[in-house]
Amino acid sequence: MMKKNHSENISDTASEYPLLSKIDSPEDLRKLQLSKLPEVCSDIRKFLINSLSSNPGHFASSMGAVELTVALHYVFNTPYDRIVWDVGHQAYGHKLLTGRRELFKNNRKLDGLSGFPNPDESPYDTFSAGHASNSISAGLGMSVASEMQKENPRRNVVAVIGDASIGGGLAFEGINNAANTPNNLLIILNDNDMSIDNNVGALNSYLGKITTSKSYNAIRYKIYKFLKRYHLVSERKRGFILRFNNSLKSLLSRQQNIFEGLNVRYFGPFDGHDLNRVIRVLRDIKDMEGPRILHLRTIKGKGYEPAEKDPATWHAPGKFDPETGVRVSGDGGEKKPLKYQDVFGNTLVELAELNSKIVGVTAAMPSGTSMSILQEKYPERVFDVGISEGHAVTFSGGLAKDGMRPYCAIYSSFLQRAYDHIIHDVAIQRLPVTFCIDRAGIVGEDGVTHHGVFDLSYLRSIPNMIVASPRNEEAMRNLLYTAQCDNYGPFAIRYPRGAGRNVEWQTPMKRIAIGKGERLSAGTDVAVLSIGPIAEDVKNAVKKAVAEGISVAHYDMMFLKPLDNEILKEVAELKCPIITVEDGVINGGLGSAVMEWLNDKGCLSVVKRIGVPDKFVAQGSVAQLYHQCEMDEDAIYNAIVAVKRQ
Amino acid sequence: MMKKNHSENISDTASEYPLLSKIDSPEDLRKLQLSKLPEVCSDIRKFLINSLSSNPGHFASSMGAVELTVALHYVFNTPYDRIVWDVGHQAYGHKLLTGRRELFKNNRKLDGLSGFPNPDESPYDTFSAGHASNSISAGLGMSVASEMQKENPRRNVVAVIGDASIGGGLAFEGINNAANTPNNLLIILNDNDMSIDNNVGALNSYLGKITTSKSYNAIRYKIYKFLKRYHLVSERKRGFILRFNNSLKSLLSRQQNIFEGLNVRYFGPFDGHDLNRVIRVLRDIKDMEGPRILHLRTIKGKGYEPAEKDPATWHAPGKFDPETGVRVSGDGGEKKPLKYQDVFGNTLVELAELNSKIVGVTAAMPSGTSMSILQEKYPERVFDVGISEGHAVTFSGGLAKDGMRPYCAIYSSFLQRAYDHIIHDVAIQRLPVTFCIDRAGIVGEDGVTHHGVFDLSYLRSIPNMIVASPRNEEAMRNLLYTAQCDNYGPFAIRYPRGAGRNVEWQTPMKRIAIGKGERLSAGTDVAVLSIGPIAEDVKNAVKKAVAEGISVAHYDMMFLKPLDNEILKEVAELKCPIITVEDGVINGGLGSAVMEWLNDKGCLSVVKRIGVPDKFVAQGSVAQLYHQCEMDEDAIYNAIVAVKRQ
Repeated sequence: MMKKNHSENISDTASEYPLLSKIDSPEDLRKLQLSKLPEVCSDIRKFLINSLSSNPGHFASSMGAVELTVALHYVFNTPYDRIVWDVGHQAYGHKLLTGRRELFKNNRKLDGLSGFPNPDESPYDTFSAGHASNSISAGLGMSVASEMQKENPRRNVVAVIGDASIGGGLAFEGINNAANTPNNLLIILNDNDMSIDNNVGALNSYLGKITTSKSYNAIRYKIYKFLKRYHLVSERKRGFILRFNNSLKSLLSRQQNIFEGLNVRYFGPFDGHDLNRVIRVLRDIKDMEGPRILHLRTIKGKGYEPAEKDPATWHAPGKFDPETGVRVSGDGGEKKPLKYQDVFGNTLVELAELNSKIVGVTAAMPSGTSMSILQEKYPERVFDVGISEGHAVTFSGGLAKDGMRPYCAIYSSFLQRAYDHIIHDVAIQRLPVTFCIDRAGIVGEDGVTHHGVFDLSYLRSIPNMIVASPRNEEAMRNLLYTAQCDNYGPFAIRYPRGAGRNVEWQTPMKRIAIGKGERLSAGTDVAVLSIGPIAEDVKNAVKKAVAEGISVAHYDMMFLKPLDNEILKEVAELKCPIITVEDGVINGGLGSAVMEWLNDKGCLSVVKRIGVPDKFVAQGSVAQLYHQCEMDEDAIYNAIVAVKRQ
Repeated sequence: MMKKNHSENISDTASEYPLLSKIDSPEDLRKLQLSKLPEVCSDIRKFLINSLSSNPGHFASSMGAVELTVALHYVFNTPYDRIVWDVGHQAYGHKLLTGRRELFKNNRKLDGLSGFPNPDESPYDTFSAGHASNSISAGLGMSVASEMQKENPRRNVVAVIGDASIGGGLAFEGINNAANTPNNLLIILNDNDMSIDNNVGALNSYLGKITTSKSYNAIRYKIYKFLKRYHLVSERKRGFILRFNNSLKSLLSRQQNIFEGLNVRYFGPFDGHDLNRVIRVLRDIKDMEGPRILHLRTIKGKGYEPAEKDPATWHAPGKFDPETGVRVSGDGGEKKPLKYQDVFGNTLVELAELNSKIVGVTAAMPSGTSMSILQEKYPERVFDVGISEGHAVTFSGGLAKDGMRPYCAIYSSFLQRAYDHIIHDVAIQRLPVTFCIDRAGIVGEDGVTHHGVFDLSYLRSIPNMIVASPRNEEAMRNLLYTAQCDNYGPFAIRYPRGAGRNVEWQTPMKRIAIGKGERLSAGTDVAVLSIGPIAEDVKNAVKKAVAEGISVAHYDMMFLKPLDNEILKEVAELKCPIITVEDGVINGGLGSAVMEWLNDKGCLSVVKRIGVPDKFVAQGSVAQLYHQCEMDEDAIYNAIVAVKRQ
């Protein structure tokens, strides 16, 4: 499935990684003596540092999960036993141990490895990962399926979830259902006290307080093993005794064990870097009946000092010097355009200064959305609700209902989690929540789970919504400004990952008319209607076509909803073929909207829709994927020529 | 806003409801002496019994919340203080006390009262309700908004949530965030140990076990009051002491307090029908700082014996005789068509007998979806996951991944909660989950939050999905059968609320071709393409048009995705105007799909789309709302005439 392009800058030799280089599958790992495993861990870390320093990816999470990864594949019979990685930031070590060491140099690249576990890639990747908190529900399904089909030998299913992901509503729903049905799900809570940013939520502070009293844990653990070995009491009674122990512990620590309250047996916390201990515990609890949680404490970035010190920065650090830990900024010194997220973040601060009702809401992505800029200036005006997109939106609805003006910044693909909340808790009541939808459109290397390509389509069908996408930084600032000028109800502003093209982004903000686009060039042979920054590609294609004597009109629609009636009238009167261009799925987006408008008015022009086709798109650079989706400059140019010449 | 049609069959006189009849707003209630309140409760119950026996609605939940409702409006300064009802099944008493007693006869009727709290209707209805578990997040937003704006006097915000709703992931996300920010949210857990059906989940069994030891609660409560009165210790210290008490309680009861683990102060459980007690406790904890949970035990249907005995049936019992409690079946003895949900439920049993891999998954709606029929026959093959639509879908994905064939039955509007889960946990991996989407389209009396009108649009843009809607019971059975004949990936079958038209529904099942529709009548002047049971309305309209000499072709598309290319080719060749008819939003649904297809093929026919327009639709009978949306038989007929004559 993957191309095996050997690249020279990563040496994968027996001398550099003596043990890892001999492990082509977990079978090989399981043949090693226990005493050899620390060396495997050390090889994995070396490999990750070397590889990721030149081919960037998610670094710190995988570094922190090395011992856990080795222990899991050592103790469990993978892939017969299932490991379900939540999100999968931490699964690089897993990829290295499961036959993908040599392919790893193409991690996150076109036709290479996915940056997340991906069942299409390997039988060891058991379930789609990328959006947080799904591992418990998915793993529970697998475990129940195995029980119902009486798989023999018994199949173990292990869900590995971080302490940020376990705060998501879906994870809670999974835990709440775990004790309801016969299953043997083992949940491993990989607790590094970090999501991408610092972690939030009561559950998290709770996890921090669970007592680490070693003597207590040791006693409790010994009691359990004793009872188990001698079959002194029934499984049921053992649970009872353990629960009693936990209550004793609660009393001593003045803390409650939430998981046991939900009838999931709790073990921990243990040091997740104590490999022998982790293996011993896994072996002990492997064959237990019923759902269990094993709580491991780990350090994000473990084994690489710069990352241990600043794990947020090292979540996905980009290129770096493996020796010194100096990150390669790629900044040649000249002034470069800001990322869209930073234009958003800085503009929001300006707006917050103008309008005291404005607050920011984000779901575990303050730095990813640059909400952190407002957070730094006015910490009390930013609410980072953790991995809880649904709550973020409903909470924003509540804020808006009683007078505040929330700007709710969430990545497009994660906002899918809050689709109902947008409808039920915001749009029905026409509440003035401004949705700042980052990472909209094709996002590149993060791949299939992260492309924000559905939003235009799923937001357009919601009544009362305003849906806009600025073509550049200036338009973005005007949209952000305009959203708070009046009560327009829900107002969605979607913008892409990465940098814009304008260095001078800090233009004076002005109020713009809702539902008004702009004619960027006039023409009569073909009319191109685009939305968002893809206008730049259109401009280039138009230039090329014009040079060849084709007269092309180009309009930036800016608003998908409401549509600009005047532009559409003008275009309809041209009676020429129309091309729509958008960075989103073509089923139900701008192209469909334009077609519907024309039809309703009885204007039958040919509409050629350019956008993401009706299939899931894998990873690659944005340019590569635009090309693959036939929505790059060349494709737009070709479409202009094709419809013109028809 | 509401019409004040006085209907004669509900007497609302001073003699029947001596106290209630004098309460036109909570102000009036608050003027009464405490000792008069039990009479108010009794009046409310009498009113509900009389009113709902002739004008059906949600009965048992509101009966169980009478004392709580009276206590809340008595203690809090509504509407300045906010009460946020979760779902709102239980809010009828609230409607009666807040100036809507006389309007109540038009409850759930066109232009009448909404069956749920609705901010458009009354300032006492503070937030949109209908989908479970949103009250904590919304209330938290309101409380934070009030704190930030320094509302004076301090505004109290009370979220009233049931024990089923609190198991939803959104509620957990809300609680998990409650302790994170300055707010005074009071969460009232109205615990009747029931959702619509019996409640499930570990949290629920946990709630059941929280000790009811009166002496313990009394001591703890007295300690708190003592500390509070004499300001002996700081607020912080008080919390500490209470937590220590709770730990003691945990030890005694061998149970943990989950809420305190999440830093939300817990009080209870108390008897929710002990009015004096409830009022006393509310007064005591009203002015406390920070988020709190008050746990009240109530009896669903309280005060009406038949409902107390069988609360599931009496959730929404239809008409009944108030004296005898005999429900009016409306069944004249003749054989009547089954509801679609029952055709589904019975067919699923047949399929489960054919295919041992088939299991059922539902989210707190076994009787509402008739999944209960399979549940009764094979209890171990049905998973009712409680109010957890996201988990239901991801869990189904896990089941499907490891070999099972889950049929996941969820109401259309509630499935919106699982939009991302459909994409991320099923569609990307092309897993064979059959989505049985009940209550699709306009649902009638449940109104704006419950219409299942978005599904066609939001499912169509997801790659790998099959989206179908049968026009009758036979087609439905064939679709349900076909879904398990092969691995087609995700397969959505959407069908409406209520009964079909065929008495002889139990036709032999046969495998049908994916993406194949059917020509129901041939014609040349107009082509009508419909999807779903609305085909019957089209048939009637066509008949009428044909009688007037218009030649109308009618096709049942059956599949929205993939579209039937042959039918579309045939229609394109007719070169006549096309009408599409669907029971869903017209932005992005069948009409758009047909238009896109035609455009892609260069066939420019006029397409008139009939469906739900781009606005939220309130309550009324299905027929009334079809008329309002211009999608009833007459509107279809008119469209045929109009496009024909153009």
